Amino acid sequence: MTARDLVIGFDADDTLWHNETIFETVHERHRALLARYHKAATVDQTLFATEMRNLELYGYGVKGFTLSAIETAIELTGGKISADEIKQLIKLGREMLAHPVELLEGVTETLVTISQEYRLLLITKGDLRDQERKLAKSGLTSHFRHVEIVSEKDEGTYASILRRHAIPAGQFLMVGNSLKSDIMPVLALGGAGAHVPYHLTWAAERVETLPQDQGRFFQLKTIRELQSVLATLASR
Amino acid sequence: MTARDLVIGFDADDTLWHNETIFETVHERHRALLARYHKAATVDQTLFATEMRNLELYGYGVKGFTLSAIETAIELTGGKISADEIKQLIKLGREMLAHPVELLEGVTETLVTISQEYRLLLITKGDLRDQERKLAKSGLTSHFRHVEIVSEKDEGTYASILRRHAIPAGQFLMVGNSLKSDIMPVLALGGAGAHVPYHLTWAAERVETLPQDQGRFFQLKTIRELQSVLATLASR
Repeated sequence: MTARDLVIGFDADDTLWHNETIFETVHERHRALLARYHKAATVDQTLFATEMRNLELYGYGVKGFTLSAIETAIELTGGKISADEIKQLIKLGREMLAHPVELLEGVTETLVTISQEYRLLLITKGDLRDQERKLAKSGLTSHFRHVEIVSEKDEGTYASILRRHAIPAGQFLMVGNSLKSDIMPVLALGGAGAHVPYHLTWAAERVETLPQDQGRFFQLKTIRELQSVLATLASR
Repeated sequence: MTARDLVIGFDADDTLWHNETIFETVHERHRALLARYHKAATVDQTLFATEMRNLELYGYGVKGFTLSAIETAIELTGGKISADEIKQLIKLGREMLAHPVELLEGVTETLVTISQEYRLLLITKGDLRDQERKLAKSGLTSHFRHVEIVSEKDEGTYASILRRHAIPAGQFLMVGNSLKSDIMPVLALGGAGAHVPYHLTWAAERVETLPQDQGRFFQLKTIRELQSVLATLASR
């Protein structure tokens, strides 16, 4: 494989910029709001169960999260939560959407370097407008040949993206922090995956066992190690 | 222009299937919920103002609408709205998302016929997952070569879609119910537009003056008239 043939897909949230830390802050404030009624673990578990129940209908993203947080607050207080407290939850949601984009360490340098040699794709899930806004704020847009904002990241989604851009799976490497959404589906299609963990992982994205795909799965500590993975892949 | 060269873009909500009627039903229930506090016109005006204020952050779609409806209810009742009534608003939002897709009269026959001769695109704005779900429920997916779900329908959006699919603007016809989102931007780029009004138009989509683009703007009564527009365009 020559370098020119290899196409690299990047996840966005928690791969290029911080995201789960923002949700974590909001979770803390949600817990604090309901602390009079329930202990933290109950609040978190109920919110997560509500999110999962609503996922099929709402999809991923801040707006669905905010609606689930309001629903959870009403449920856990038996309707005693005040309109003013619900207003605070709406405000928290808006703050998440307006939050500045903070790039992860090493991202800019890595993208600047590798985009000179490889074709890069951004593949991210969540609210359409929110993801577009974060990408615009990140200043990274020009490094990506294509941007794909999708409602789910499974084998079907990746297969359709690869087909649309005429990329053979064997020439595709996906880079991301979620084994479940970024790595597993791409390995299943015959592509390669580079996993760069973020220090927090949303419960819905957790997987128990690491992939065993010799030569196609790369476990990195930081995105800076990506260049040596590319050297390995290109030398084959 | 030969038929084979012409590419036809279709809007979805209120062009292929009913949408504004569902919003109208929800508006009625929102008014009823707040009838103790304010007259209908005040409720509608405040909700619309809230939606417009939040549009930049939320984008189009049901989830943002639901959050704006909750915010409006809290504001208009001075915080007196009950948690149970807010729960009803969340439930209304969910009902909108789960609503069956009801095709407009003449849509299926028209798409079946013209997709045999022309390349069709679906170009729609709103919540990503909601639009995907409606398209899947509609049973119309197979008629479209590409589906574009976008966060805004302006000149920039259409220009980028035409560029991506290598479609010259002069060979593109957009069909839709919104002069503002479906017709004006495409005419401005040099394409053609066929306006098929829906009996309801959301205030944010209303325009005052009809386009004057001779030979490129077509005012239809129903989507069934599209085939004669195509005959006119193809005969040039």
